[in-house]
Amino acid sequence: MKKLRVGVVGATGYTGEELVKLLSRHPEAELTYVSGKEDRSENIQDIFPYLQGKVDLPCKAFSVEEAIEKCDLVFLSLPHTISMGVVPVLLKAGKKVIDISADYRLKDTAVYEKFYKVPHGDTANLSHAVYGLPEIHRAEIQSATLVANPGCYPTGAALGLLPGVKEGIFDTDTIQIDAKSGVTGAGRKASKDLLFPEVNESLKAYKLFEHQHVPEIDQALTEVAGKKVSVVFVPHLIPINRGILSTIYVKLAPPAAGQAKKITTEELLAVYKTFYAKEPFVKVYDAGRLPEIKNVTNTNFCDIGLKVNEEKGLAVIVTTIDNLDKGAAGQAIQNMNIMCGFAETSGL
Amino acid sequence: MKKLRVGVVGATGYTGEELVKLLSRHPEAELTYVSGKEDRSENIQDIFPYLQGKVDLPCKAFSVEEAIEKCDLVFLSLPHTISMGVVPVLLKAGKKVIDISADYRLKDTAVYEKFYKVPHGDTANLSHAVYGLPEIHRAEIQSATLVANPGCYPTGAALGLLPGVKEGIFDTDTIQIDAKSGVTGAGRKASKDLLFPEVNESLKAYKLFEHQHVPEIDQALTEVAGKKVSVVFVPHLIPINRGILSTIYVKLAPPAAGQAKKITTEELLAVYKTFYAKEPFVKVYDAGRLPEIKNVTNTNFCDIGLKVNEEKGLAVIVTTIDNLDKGAAGQAIQNMNIMCGFAETSGL
Amino acid sequence: MKKLRVGVVGATGYTGEELVKLLSRHPEAELTYVSGKEDRSENIQDIFPYLQGKVDLPCKAFSVEEAIEKCDLVFLSLPHTISMGVVPVLLKAGKKVIDISADYRLKDTAVYEKFYKVPHGDTANLSHAVYGLPEIHRAEIQSATLVANPGCYPTGAALGLLPGVKEGIFDTDTIQIDAKSGVTGAGRKASKDLLFPEVNESLKAYKLFEHQHVPEIDQALTEVAGKKVSVVFVPHLIPINRGILSTIYVKLAPPAAGQAKKITTEELLAVYKTFYAKEPFVKVYDAGRLPEIKNVTNTNFCDIGLKVNEEKGLAVIVTTIDNLDKGAAGQAIQNMNIMCGFAETSGL
Amino acid sequence: MKKLRVGVVGATGYTGEELVKLLSRHPEAELTYVSGKEDRSENIQDIFPYLQGKVDLPCKAFSVEEAIEKCDLVFLSLPHTISMGVVPVLLKAGKKVIDISADYRLKDTAVYEKFYKVPHGDTANLSHAVYGLPEIHRAEIQSATLVANPGCYPTGAALGLLPGVKEGIFDTDTIQIDAKSGVTGAGRKASKDLLFPEVNESLKAYKLFEHQHVPEIDQALTEVAGKKVSVVFVPHLIPINRGILSTIYVKLAPPAAGQAKKITTEELLAVYKTFYAKEPFVKVYDAGRLPEIKNVTNTNFCDIGLKVNEEKGLAVIVTTIDNLDKGAAGQAIQNMNIMCGFAETSGL
Repeated sequence: MKKLRVGVVGATGYTGEELVKLLSRHPEAELTYVSGKEDRSENIQDIFPYLQGKVDLPCKAFSVEEAIEKCDLVFLSLPHTISMGVVPVLLKAGKKVIDISADYRLKDTAVYEKFYKVPHGDTANLSHAVYGLPEIHRAEIQSATLVANPGCYPTGAALGLLPGVKEGIFDTDTIQIDAKSGVTGAGRKASKDLLFPEVNESLKAYKLFEHQHVPEIDQALTEVAGKKVSVVFVPHLIPINRGILSTIYVKLAPPAAGQAKKITTEELLAVYKTFYAKEPFVKVYDAGRLPEIKNVTNTNFCDIGLKVNEEKGLAVIVTTIDNLDKGAAGQAIQNMNIMCGFAETSGL
Repeated sequence: MKKLRVGVVGATGYTGEELVKLLSRHPEAELTYVSGKEDRSENIQDIFPYLQGKVDLPCKAFSVEEAIEKCDLVFLSLPHTISMGVVPVLLKAGKKVIDISADYRLKDTAVYEKFYKVPHGDTANLSHAVYGLPEIHRAEIQSATLVANPGCYPTGAALGLLPGVKEGIFDTDTIQIDAKSGVTGAGRKASKDLLFPEVNESLKAYKLFEHQHVPEIDQALTEVAGKKVSVVFVPHLIPINRGILSTIYVKLAPPAAGQAKKITTEELLAVYKTFYAKEPFVKVYDAGRLPEIKNVTNTNFCDIGLKVNEEKGLAVIVTTIDNLDKGAAGQAIQNMNIMCGFAETSGL
Repeated sequence: MKKLRVGVVGATGYTGEELVKLLSRHPEAELTYVSGKEDRSENIQDIFPYLQGKVDLPCKAFSVEEAIEKCDLVFLSLPHTISMGVVPVLLKAGKKVIDISADYRLKDTAVYEKFYKVPHGDTANLSHAVYGLPEIHRAEIQSATLVANPGCYPTGAALGLLPGVKEGIFDTDTIQIDAKSGVTGAGRKASKDLLFPEVNESLKAYKLFEHQHVPEIDQALTEVAGKKVSVVFVPHLIPINRGILSTIYVKLAPPAAGQAKKITTEELLAVYKTFYAKEPFVKVYDAGRLPEIKNVTNTNFCDIGLKVNEEKGLAVIVTTIDNLDKGAAGQAIQNMNIMCGFAETSGL
Repeated sequence: MKKLRVGVVGATGYTGEELVKLLSRHPEAELTYVSGKEDRSENIQDIFPYLQGKVDLPCKAFSVEEAIEKCDLVFLSLPHTISMGVVPVLLKAGKKVIDISADYRLKDTAVYEKFYKVPHGDTANLSHAVYGLPEIHRAEIQSATLVANPGCYPTGAALGLLPGVKEGIFDTDTIQIDAKSGVTGAGRKASKDLLFPEVNESLKAYKLFEHQHVPEIDQALTEVAGKKVSVVFVPHLIPINRGILSTIYVKLAPPAAGQAKKITTEELLAVYKTFYAKEPFVKVYDAGRLPEIKNVTNTNFCDIGLKVNEEKGLAVIVTTIDNLDKGAAGQAIQNMNIMCGFAETSGL
């Protein structure tokens, strides 16, 4: 069978590199095009030596014509606002596109403009773009030509909340998410704040209440809740390379009329296990066990553990993902698999 | 002036080591006795080479007689339940004692028994032991003979909450503390779970709702609030050596009658700055800035930053301490300084 | 095709865990048996949650009868001296064995006894055991029933030296190896010295001249040199999880009669490239580039870079491997592939 | 007594920051001037919050006039080539100067030009500048007005070699230094190569044979040896913040006529202990013990351990320093103390 010809635009960032690594061993896809920020015209295997014998492609400055010529599907691992200039051209040429930037994630362009400080430039395609969280949009992804790959924080947060929000178990007005991310989440860009000695042996919270991923979390939860949800989100930078652990605090909604009993840890876990029963990449832990980042590193899994505090009427849910896999490149491959009819776990 | 003769019992653990290091350069105290777990009869400077030329003492198995003979004041850096066997003997001999274990922190022996699984064995001295958080008990510490040095998590949590709780600004029924600690907090004991490769590049939450420091936080806040406070506390283990960052989520209490206006970030900061105005080891940041662990490492400071979310009626407070300094040995020295009439910052 | 039934004895150590992970995705082998140190009777996927959906096997205390019944080939990831009690039984039952301990690596039992402090208990099988460094013993491995998988340090050191030693380019009397290893190399055993805060933010040399891997390096080089080689070896412990970087200092042998010219970096690299031309897991870098550990992490590669100092008549060779892959489990799989006629890179 | 008025030019780099920290608690010196790269006109305590209550100075762009007006002694923590433009002005104004750049370290301007790629612009002052390694130049430092503070690598390397080189015990033609440095050694400058995820969990050698510190090591050893010494030096970057461990390989010189016996570990250690007997900041370990970086972190010590391999006629010496203390700021303070007649350990 002829393999799907795939390109990675922005292959020298952390997510781009992970995409190239995953695609180099994908059984149904063949990497046929990679581009980087600078026109170094280097072979990608000279940039990432472990690709020797696996990928043999020049990594040049991006040319949309070349991408169109060489690819059936293109991953865009570009800074936001750049993607929306490229997507229309690729779609017009009949290509499938998985955009890893934020450009096609938010359906409300006013919200996009508020958080990204520029007007949206491609509302035509935004309207049919599918938010690529397979756990809620698998069917739409199957027929999509443009998938907006979710952000790393929203993936870890939403997967920890969806079952309880959908079932009306949580008070959706008081959700608080304390997220901790490894440093690759900040991208491969020269910055004093991200130098090894600045991050190592330290820890900080940042962008309290105003991180650009907040509206994305709200949108995903609102959709499932059927009513407006707005979360409190506090991200932290942690001295590890990869991984996000989200500690989510939820107040349990009062039992419906006739339901005297409060929900227990086991009952809430049962709801989660049912919700994710058929999901290939979500694991719900048994009571008494909580996820750790190292158990998802270099995998596309989201692990979930939780505990109910019956006395206080609340629950704490802990989720872990690898921010470069389920939080970016791995989920993008999962979306490609769904869009193209491959086995969903293929190459992952 | 003759220096205070000081002993450190349990000098080979992380807190004991930090005590020895701090005392080796204290202008008014002289280290005259150290003991360790095993009777290695080694000089302490053979165990910690950087003490050469600074401390020249054998580190033997603990002998209470020797401690009494050689010391005016004794720091007990022992596992809980061991301390309460030693304290009565030292006090009877007229020594001042700063106990760094949990044995004399909780005034309610039933709570002690619930969390530490043994009955309290020295209620006589428990009754007059002073909880050594100088920011609320300075006067009592001055005249104390037995100080119960606070736990690391409670110090970081309580200092972040005291001003708002005291002023009735926070809803005390819904306080949530998401704490992240470095690995020295777990002590220097052989354990597979704390091996470098188990902790490095990972992150986990543990002891949800049931960490033994919860009743200590509750007790400190209850005292200041004048009513029962019970917090939700979720600790995490972080791959750094030293430091705790606590992210504290509080709901703002409704404005009192006649007070129409909600509190702002600046107003809440002003309350904190007033509360801590004369404190030598608490720094309240200006609006727009948040503490990072690296700024308190190897210091006795607690740094505090915060932000109000007026729309949601809540605030997030971030505090940082070095768990071995303000969270243990540094605060113990601060307490010694207060008990002995030295300058409070002496040697710190 | 029926898959090879494979067992891992000692599956809960770092190497055992890596073997299980690699075998769980091997196309020609099926993991049918795993055992751990303690009889926890847990499923291996409860110990390593990322195996869920991939491996479903109880991890019990080792039973040689069960291993014989369930496996065609057995990996022994056991402490040295234990392996040689098990190997004879497995071989007698007609099983193939890959022993990852040191028990069958050293052909000279006197040397074994000197470094491991016990007499060798299975000289019969020692005589036909093949030292599993495919780069020099591929043919013997193909027909072996017992392969002694090389140590991690010897793999990184030997691969950096073999071409030059074989061609007589290096003075074999003055070879010095400065090796730096990540902490998984020390095994998953509770030890204060390996606690996170003891290793993190530090660095140390250990076992100067007397590490147990020295005779193994000497044996491999002696075989290729055709004369006795004895190296100076200084290992260091580095605060990373995985990886060994070896910096090797060699004096260049004087040019043979008639060869006036000294060797250059390019010429020496050419010798290395020729030597390793057909090797699937050795990469020789071009002049001006040196290997970094991150480029081999989670791979079975050994990367090699070098530079000649013509003025001083010496060369420095730098090699990197992942100590758990090419230095242990990965190389063991490579050996299995060779022994069983699979593609050498299968599953790697 | 009136305190010495001291300035730090380049206070926002890692070395500058360490200088400010050390000076803020120095009993005889008062920090009266700090300058940074950019004219942020911020108070230094807004840049480094832990200085609150300790240093209250604006950190502006450098003005030589202001430095002259406010200081008796100036530390220059500037990039090389910049220092030599400033030093003449400061000296002319009668100030003492401790230059932490490389500009006044190399007496041979041709060597300077070869390694730093620019001609030397201040040969007049170079001639009387004293190389500030107190262990060999204490007397000259006492009367110096311009001290060239040694580089970090040269300090760790030279201190490990001086006693043996001076006594003629080592073959000075074959010295090899394998040095491992923490990341602050590379300075606080935005660079992709020094981002946390690039350095963390990795390790690399760099600048083989050609690091700019090589001529500095050679110069110090040549001076002590009384003959030309030229070392082989291979630096490595290690994922820790602070510290250098140098592993030094030396061939033992043949015993002089009449001296039949080879030197032992104990005898070589005795030579080192004698050489450093009165040094306040050098510790020589007993046989069987080797230094670790963590034992010198945040101290001005250089720890030395060694072992002789009698069979091979060589020794390995291991030294550790904190690159920001004995390798930069700490040693600069030590030099100030010597220049100004303070106790040599004052403030350290």
